[in-house]
Amino acid sequence: MTSRQYGGHTLYFKNSPKIISTGTVAGPKECFGIVGRFVDRPLTDDMFGEDTFEKAECKMLSTAIDTAINGAGLSRSQIDVLFSGDLLNQIISASFAARDFDIPFLGLYSACSTMSESMLLAAAMVNAGYARRAVAATGSHFASAERQYRYPLEQGTTRPPQSQWTVTGAGSCVIAGKGEGVSIVSGTIGRVVDFGVTDVNNMGAAMAPACADTLLCHFRDTGLSPDDYDMIISGDLGALGSRILKDLMWEKGFDISHNHVDCGEIIYDVIEDEFQGGSGAGCSAVVFNSYIMSKLNSGEFKKVLFAATGALLSTVSSGQGESIPCISHAVALKK
Amino acid sequence: MTSRQYGGHTLYFKNSPKIISTGTVAGPKECFGIVGRFVDRPLTDDMFGEDTFEKAECKMLSTAIDTAINGAGLSRSQIDVLFSGDLLNQIISASFAARDFDIPFLGLYSACSTMSESMLLAAAMVNAGYARRAVAATGSHFASAERQYRYPLEQGTTRPPQSQWTVTGAGSCVIAGKGEGVSIVSGTIGRVVDFGVTDVNNMGAAMAPACADTLLCHFRDTGLSPDDYDMIISGDLGALGSRILKDLMWEKGFDISHNHVDCGEIIYDVIEDEFQGGSGAGCSAVVFNSYIMSKLNSGEFKKVLFAATGALLSTVSSGQGESIPCISHAVALKK
Repeated sequence: MTSRQYGGHTLYFKNSPKIISTGTVAGPKECFGIVGRFVDRPLTDDMFGEDTFEKAECKMLSTAIDTAINGAGLSRSQIDVLFSGDLLNQIISASFAARDFDIPFLGLYSACSTMSESMLLAAAMVNAGYARRAVAATGSHFASAERQYRYPLEQGTTRPPQSQWTVTGAGSCVIAGKGEGVSIVSGTIGRVVDFGVTDVNNMGAAMAPACADTLLCHFRDTGLSPDDYDMIISGDLGALGSRILKDLMWEKGFDISHNHVDCGEIIYDVIEDEFQGGSGAGCSAVVFNSYIMSKLNSGEFKKVLFAATGALLSTVSSGQGESIPCISHAVALKK
Repeated sequence: MTSRQYGGHTLYFKNSPKIISTGTVAGPKECFGIVGRFVDRPLTDDMFGEDTFEKAECKMLSTAIDTAINGAGLSRSQIDVLFSGDLLNQIISASFAARDFDIPFLGLYSACSTMSESMLLAAAMVNAGYARRAVAATGSHFASAERQYRYPLEQGTTRPPQSQWTVTGAGSCVIAGKGEGVSIVSGTIGRVVDFGVTDVNNMGAAMAPACADTLLCHFRDTGLSPDDYDMIISGDLGALGSRILKDLMWEKGFDISHNHVDCGEIIYDVIEDEFQGGSGAGCSAVVFNSYIMSKLNSGEFKKVLFAATGALLSTVSSGQGESIPCISHAVALKK
């Protein structure tokens, strides 16, 4: 199929673009879990004062971006470019947020790996001197995703045990050439990997091979090993997907069992219908920009590899019998 | 609303990344028009041997990419990154094409402005030395767009006179640091502009202000004027949108009446239901990568500004009463 052993491509950021500020918003269910203490704007109502789920999602994303910009002591006009996308058809959350922000905007679609794709591109822009400051952001909403990808909530459809729960939340960070913060050292662009999984309720199993491919590419390109990182963080594989990832890495001679966590696996204290944990573009966006960044900023973690993961299916592609193509992009961070 | 007069941001590519090859595919209706003589792969059947419109669209995109790569005498493994997106929900044409290509992939969504967004990012990557060669590509299909955004074709819905016809076609180019070709000199990232148009059949009127905003930003940032370009090419404004663009530019003191063409306005010899002309991500992708590039390669055009235009609506946003946010990204080219 390919002449590449692992198909990614790694960029190096010698000028140390830095995350100088973050902003996060999360729903009430999400704030019961590990991120509750770290989120900037915990919500008590997942409608966030709006009259539709989609508008609530857009408002969460806008709030996360504004929080990050304000947290850096900046105004919107000081941001040169916004990289954002989301799960909704035609990324309306990102596009409508960008309309209000009036910041030069490059729209992305990479499903639940949007956080690391946007960070990688923002860091690349800043490192090359194209932009002084760039914002990376994404989010998701359980209810808007559920009705777009699956069934109306009112139907009360039973969820199978391999399923995950789409996170209601958004995360954003400001990446700048100057200032104090966590450096983005490199980024590995992933390729699309499809192991033939067709079960749309089993995203963890579908995405794990893409994540493994990108991690293996990153280690090959950089000459680093898992032990060079305090923590390797995958996006939203959930409990089952994380186990598959560890097994796939082990088979290739890389043991990540002691320093891997998955944002989807840790975001919920699983008590109800979340089963394998969280998913959605907001999952890794919230966990990374709140919990993980606080550990990096405090110096508890010094070197982190963050690989968000995305399943690139649509209801049409699944309906036409296609399997689920997946992707993962990684960024390496250093305090 | 903003502290920016015009909200874009211009990047300069000092190392002259070059378009070393292009590839285009277009449907039978499209090949009756001006692009017919220039398209690499004119189709006699818009199903392209596939059993669904979406699969035909994906195959057109793949074929355009392969044609561009092969035309440069390269293999897929020599491409460091593919930037692509399309109009379908979750950009399945681009994602499934990327699955088959096995090239590191960064997914974009910018509606019908995807061609210039992908070119801008590919040129930025190559210019900065992050990639030796990058591919930019997009496409669309009349039938897949029609049933996703509007009505089932079988319904035979009447189209109003302000409407445009989604182009069945795809275009792609290889951008490299070395080799012969047309240089990409700079790129202007647009901001989202929304003048409050809610008529989803009148995309040209909705998009024209975004195009004007990006052109004005480009002239302000670069110090150039319309007369510095042999041709200023907008994406898919159609006849009505093009007239609005010219008027908006005139109001700001920039006369583009003698050297502006719009890909949507010129792609069809309007004889049937195309009304204002072509639209869709494939419109500017096909016209630029076939007709315009042949004029640049022959030296007939020496300096060109290409600004594809996109309407960032979805059926959900329109259904919830929102107006149509639009965007345009520009790239400046020099033979």
